[in-house]
Amino acid sequence: MKIGIIVIGNEILGGFTIDKNAAWIGQTLLNEGLRVHRKITVLDQKNEIIRAFDSLSEDCDIVISTGGLGPTIDDITTSTLFDYFNDKPIYDESYWNKLKLYFNNKGMEIPPINRNQCYQSTTGKMIPNLKGSARGLFYHLEGKKYFILPGVPMEMKAMFEEFVLAEILKQTSEKFYCRSINTAAIAESLIHEKIIHLIESEHYQGCEVSFLPHKMFGVDIRIMSTNREVIDKLVDEITLILQDNIYGYDEETLIESVTQALLSQKLTISVAESCTGGLLGETFTNIAGSSAFFKGGVICYSDELKRNLVHVSEKTLKKFGAVSYEVAEELCRNIARICTTDIGIGITGVAGPGGGSKEKPVGLVFIGIFYQNNLYIHEYNLTSDRKTNRELSITLCLNELRKILIK
Amino acid sequence: MKIGIIVIGNEILGGFTIDKNAAWIGQTLLNEGLRVHRKITVLDQKNEIIRAFDSLSEDCDIVISTGGLGPTIDDITTSTLFDYFNDKPIYDESYWNKLKLYFNNKGMEIPPINRNQCYQSTTGKMIPNLKGSARGLFYHLEGKKYFILPGVPMEMKAMFEEFVLAEILKQTSEKFYCRSINTAAIAESLIHEKIIHLIESEHYQGCEVSFLPHKMFGVDIRIMSTNREVIDKLVDEITLILQDNIYGYDEETLIESVTQALLSQKLTISVAESCTGGLLGETFTNIAGSSAFFKGGVICYSDELKRNLVHVSEKTLKKFGAVSYEVAEELCRNIARICTTDIGIGITGVAGPGGGSKEKPVGLVFIGIFYQNNLYIHEYNLTSDRKTNRELSITLCLNELRKILIK
Repeated sequence: MKIGIIVIGNEILGGFTIDKNAAWIGQTLLNEGLRVHRKITVLDQKNEIIRAFDSLSEDCDIVISTGGLGPTIDDITTSTLFDYFNDKPIYDESYWNKLKLYFNNKGMEIPPINRNQCYQSTTGKMIPNLKGSARGLFYHLEGKKYFILPGVPMEMKAMFEEFVLAEILKQTSEKFYCRSINTAAIAESLIHEKIIHLIESEHYQGCEVSFLPHKMFGVDIRIMSTNREVIDKLVDEITLILQDNIYGYDEETLIESVTQALLSQKLTISVAESCTGGLLGETFTNIAGSSAFFKGGVICYSDELKRNLVHVSEKTLKKFGAVSYEVAEELCRNIARICTTDIGIGITGVAGPGGGSKEKPVGLVFIGIFYQNNLYIHEYNLTSDRKTNRELSITLCLNELRKILIK
Repeated sequence: MKIGIIVIGNEILGGFTIDKNAAWIGQTLLNEGLRVHRKITVLDQKNEIIRAFDSLSEDCDIVISTGGLGPTIDDITTSTLFDYFNDKPIYDESYWNKLKLYFNNKGMEIPPINRNQCYQSTTGKMIPNLKGSARGLFYHLEGKKYFILPGVPMEMKAMFEEFVLAEILKQTSEKFYCRSINTAAIAESLIHEKIIHLIESEHYQGCEVSFLPHKMFGVDIRIMSTNREVIDKLVDEITLILQDNIYGYDEETLIESVTQALLSQKLTISVAESCTGGLLGETFTNIAGSSAFFKGGVICYSDELKRNLVHVSEKTLKKFGAVSYEVAEELCRNIARICTTDIGIGITGVAGPGGGSKEKPVGLVFIGIFYQNNLYIHEYNLTSDRKTNRELSITLCLNELRKILIK
């Protein structure tokens, strides 16, 4: 079974919006052992939309489109596809009344333009929208299934989960399995060298192995095959080789492996963030239930707050500067004491693009971890890019913390 | 001139990686008045790559591909296209020596597998890679130009800026102009109602207008045309109608308009974040040079830190609970005093999915702003989704702050 996706929207091709819908569909289908085969992104233009449907219809059994179902003039997907599928839509007053109620319940008056969304297919089927006003469309023609969904992620996902997925799964198909080995602090080509004999061995012929570098310090090894047992065996063999560099499998992330270690060891943590300005706190609190281990901390972006809120000594700041081994040391030790947590983290650095000097160039970052009366301070020379420096600091900090906690 | 993009990679279709390269290319070209016409995303499979090149060659003058140039076995783009373009590549020992040096300078030994990246085109041209090991390819055939670029964003962008863009701009073409009016706190369909008479008027026939909803509380109005003057006139007319709801134009973001107001009025700001856990601090410090107005603050995720670091009174916490109007009030007032800033922000809420109750359901958020001895406290009932609640809190907070500062 081949599945194709059509993403409709000028804003996507213009780069104003990053399309995350197709990725979500890809992951959702992969969880069911199905793969997306091809994706075409097109402008909101009738001939372009038709061309894409024609192209995917050639070899795909399932075609899913997203976008262009809104009520405004730039939304032309529905009218285009009514034509394309020779549909004879009729105006549906009962849906208009339903929409009116929906708007009223939100304390809003319904704009007349929403009448555009009240046409009902006669040869296909409307897919209900539980989260918004634009219904989807479903056609089943010549053995192929077409799903036309809105572009608003929340609405699209609800429709996909409620209706589309079940409809796709009615068709039987050879299923793919996928596993991932997630590594940190080892280069892609080095991993390749260490495991190429396995990948090329005849035992693992049916396995498709790929490498996914994340940012700069992590590579995921993805293995796909129709044979689940063979994948698991290969995962075991690779694990034996890469051991220390593996922080997790499948959907496990670095933050999750740290979170698990903190929870299982009943440890609490606090942060004193200078150059990362709250990003580490944000990363921890992104996890639902993080209040079990994360108490909070101080964003000490100014030296004044480093002194007044984290009690870094005036002397240390003067002698070594805010971006120094010594300040990182005081930050992590003091914040653990101030917040009465088992672990304290201190991050100070020159994120850039300004603020660098010959002695303290942009990209210089000190990360300190205080735990069980031990100090683990690391100095890094990262990049010239502000965003990268901030994100890398978090990755490096979490990886160090992971190593300390699993010792 | 029609431009097409081919994104190559199983990881993209599987949804493991979100493709941001094509969006960046789209924006970069739009800055030059050029539009991307179509994008095809394909698996790392020879026949799929060829099919995509065939398809875009039909009507595009420029074809740009990204991905699949790495040294490992899953990277097949280069070999596929050497075949596709009937190239006769030769092994280039001098490039191998260059790569060896590049690795040595980084303190690493070069893995033998990188020899795969040392083949040199004879009918096309190699595009130098200033940031990595994989060179790009350029073919100019039958009036069409093909650029084959790596998928690593940093490498792709450098090649695009150094080589590809200049090559594309050699061709003359009708240029598009694009402007954006960025609004907050007004629904897409209401905007539509208010400005539809302009969009449909004959004065603006050549203008293509589209609406881009961002998250839940902001809509960008994009206008494209080949006539710059007409666009500017339409922007002026829409501005007169939507006035208060417009926070900026073109690439201006809400955070930038707040930042500008803070800088021009020489105001300093600090934050006390509970449910957002550092996200507001992160948002401010994401801006280079934010130390001019942002001093820092406290991530008071636990009640203990609300008391000890932000001096919220025990009595208030007990009587009203951590998520309350009164706590938001103390947070913003106290943090401004503690950090000696002109403005103090306090955010407390139930982000979810846990922690909700009948009186304090998930999505209840209080945002407090203290400025010039005034308190601006707002209560919001947001959504059931943790991530959305945290992000919306930041958007709402910034929009309130903007309104206060431009009064």
